[in-house]
Amino acid sequence: MGTPWSHRFAYRTATVKSSAIRELLKLTQRQEVISFAGGLPAPDVFPVARFEQACQRVLEQHGPQALQYSTTEGYLPLREMIAQHLRRYGILATPDNVLLTSGSQQALDLIAKLLINRGDRVLVEAPTYLGALQAFNVFGPDYVTVPVDDDGLRTDLLEDALRAGPKFMYILPNFQNPSGVTLSLQRREELVYLSDKYGVPIVEDDPYGQLRYEGQHLPPLVVLDRENLRRDDGYALGNVIYLSTFSKTLAPGLRLGWIVAPQEVIAKLVQLKQGADLHTSTFVQMVAYEVARDGFLDEHVKTIRHVYGERRDLMLDALAEFFPAEVTWTHPHGGLFLWVTMPEGADGNQLLKEAIREDVAFVPGDCFFPKEGDGLRNFRLNFSNATPVQIREGIRRLSVALKAQVGKCELVMA
Amino acid sequence: MGTPWSHRFAYRTATVKSSAIRELLKLTQRQEVISFAGGLPAPDVFPVARFEQACQRVLEQHGPQALQYSTTEGYLPLREMIAQHLRRYGILATPDNVLLTSGSQQALDLIAKLLINRGDRVLVEAPTYLGALQAFNVFGPDYVTVPVDDDGLRTDLLEDALRAGPKFMYILPNFQNPSGVTLSLQRREELVYLSDKYGVPIVEDDPYGQLRYEGQHLPPLVVLDRENLRRDDGYALGNVIYLSTFSKTLAPGLRLGWIVAPQEVIAKLVQLKQGADLHTSTFVQMVAYEVARDGFLDEHVKTIRHVYGERRDLMLDALAEFFPAEVTWTHPHGGLFLWVTMPEGADGNQLLKEAIREDVAFVPGDCFFPKEGDGLRNFRLNFSNATPVQIREGIRRLSVALKAQVGKCELVMA
Repeated sequence: MGTPWSHRFAYRTATVKSSAIRELLKLTQRQEVISFAGGLPAPDVFPVARFEQACQRVLEQHGPQALQYSTTEGYLPLREMIAQHLRRYGILATPDNVLLTSGSQQALDLIAKLLINRGDRVLVEAPTYLGALQAFNVFGPDYVTVPVDDDGLRTDLLEDALRAGPKFMYILPNFQNPSGVTLSLQRREELVYLSDKYGVPIVEDDPYGQLRYEGQHLPPLVVLDRENLRRDDGYALGNVIYLSTFSKTLAPGLRLGWIVAPQEVIAKLVQLKQGADLHTSTFVQMVAYEVARDGFLDEHVKTIRHVYGERRDLMLDALAEFFPAEVTWTHPHGGLFLWVTMPEGADGNQLLKEAIREDVAFVPGDCFFPKEGDGLRNFRLNFSNATPVQIREGIRRLSVALKAQVGKCELVMA
Repeated sequence: MGTPWSHRFAYRTATVKSSAIRELLKLTQRQEVISFAGGLPAPDVFPVARFEQACQRVLEQHGPQALQYSTTEGYLPLREMIAQHLRRYGILATPDNVLLTSGSQQALDLIAKLLINRGDRVLVEAPTYLGALQAFNVFGPDYVTVPVDDDGLRTDLLEDALRAGPKFMYILPNFQNPSGVTLSLQRREELVYLSDKYGVPIVEDDPYGQLRYEGQHLPPLVVLDRENLRRDDGYALGNVIYLSTFSKTLAPGLRLGWIVAPQEVIAKLVQLKQGADLHTSTFVQMVAYEVARDGFLDEHVKTIRHVYGERRDLMLDALAEFFPAEVTWTHPHGGLFLWVTMPEGADGNQLLKEAIREDVAFVPGDCFFPKEGDGLRNFRLNFSNATPVQIREGIRRLSVALKAQVGKCELVMA
């Protein structure tokens, strides 16, 4: 009958439109382009030799078992290691509270499956992680947004948003992607208080928490939630689902993340994960465990902090040196990103076109907002992936494109 | 506020009930139990040494790139290898028609996301693969079922079912899981003809196609579809989405499968996969390519065929020797499973309880039907995982439980 496939697609596929930006970013794969676009770790810090030893040891010690089907929950020694690591930060999880996922992107997909009925409201920060919007969109939510400033989510605006009855809040408290800002302690306490008051749970996404280059570690929401509610039952109750990943500390090519949640939530997520991919690669889990064990991961994270901290400083210096005065940016205390704001009337998408001509790339700000037209004046810069030399040169090139763009704005506004 | 989490779960979680069967099967993990329950490959055929070399070579040749983020579509050399392999079977796919997935379970999840709106009808074989029902259920379909017999799907009953307007048909033509039966050539032609006549596409799931122990290879539906419609444009059009996996030929612990489809379908699936897990593990894809290359996989599949063919024969012999005359079973020409039918009134779930007391396990038939109460007289036996000695002893033990169960039926029916 020759029915076009497009006539058969489910409603949700309409929300995953082929983005113009993805097409543009394809142009940035040329060798000569300096890209601040991706969220890629620096390849030069990957512990390749340690991986080689780990693969050998896993195959010699576990043999065929490393290549066989395994449980949906994940490799027990790895879940134990994660639970123990979390205790350091005051998160009282047992291995039964931990579900291994195929990257924390899968965690977002499973949580969307668990919680979102079509038309449900989901509260997100504005801006927020693009990949979370992609995962959630599939299940047809409406978004309620609350802006962030230099201290993170504007909790003074939160109560109004909560009255709209969102199903859950999706929050990145540390070195937020894309803005780089960190939620202050006071706002963390307010957020947890309001979450409890309105009965709206929090999905706390923390991929970068360990990558802090200045200032003091702040308590995770999941810990404040327990303290606030004087819950002394470990992790049996709680308003918070906590996510993290090995992507920024070990290697993103593994696709290995985890969810920490009350057991009744984990039980449902396990069933949903079984339908989604049965389980995460047995071999990858065993190799990650073997690489991370005996304190290696802690030492390795120190190296990453050193390298990325230096690159952040270099980028901040280059921005101060090259960028025009009308342009501002955030000062992230950790993570991989910073966030640039241009004057009224500037357009990040236009700027990207000009930047590509200068052989430099970034992600325009509007990608990070659920509402079309928001964030046009912004863009995100990644400082972990480019080398020190590239960072300075890339910001110089970008400043050329930027001056043209900002100049145009002034003409328009004149 | 202490809202229980269960009050927040989406409608779809009601369909993923914690199955009693899963609890029962946990009892079968005791060392002394001989299990015919899982669909596990034989661990003794996994090419562990070849994996060890492959890991080393990948890390030495690709270094950090093997641990970095990569494209959602999948590792190009692996997609090329798959496309080339498919050409052997007459499937004219290019690498652009191939999407790598995190096991073929993820393929089912992505296809469900792509095609199923809540309340849509999906046509499945009765019985069908349990994991497909789990993946589809999340998106709230209604099922239309068509029974299988020794020649596969009853195409004589198909036209009526197609008039119910299903969104797609999910078909396992080769050595079907769970029944072990294979769709005859004549029925393949009828199926493809009716798919075209009613404009209902086919999702062809083919995890076991290469594992044939007797008889001649039959053309995949995707090939007949192209021939039937006299399509000479390679894979640009077509009513069939084709799935397969490395789980039964290389190792299931990798979680590596693939989808072959027209490019407009692949493009949407890529977007959905991006939201689901960004991409499948870079490292796993590179290692699988390195293991499979230079003709190794073909040689290895010959070994598997030999080992599993022998085990199938052993199980068929043991069934003939030990099982009571009232019980019948299928004679699979390949794959991993056979399907047992007990007399009217027998109950596979009751039998399992008795079997566990005899230290032997299987999966009761009703798991493989979307409608509750169907398949109670049936159960599935796996013959790939247990050793030859275990197969004979396990079937002997099972016959003890079975005689008690069949005896009870006769009492009830008397």
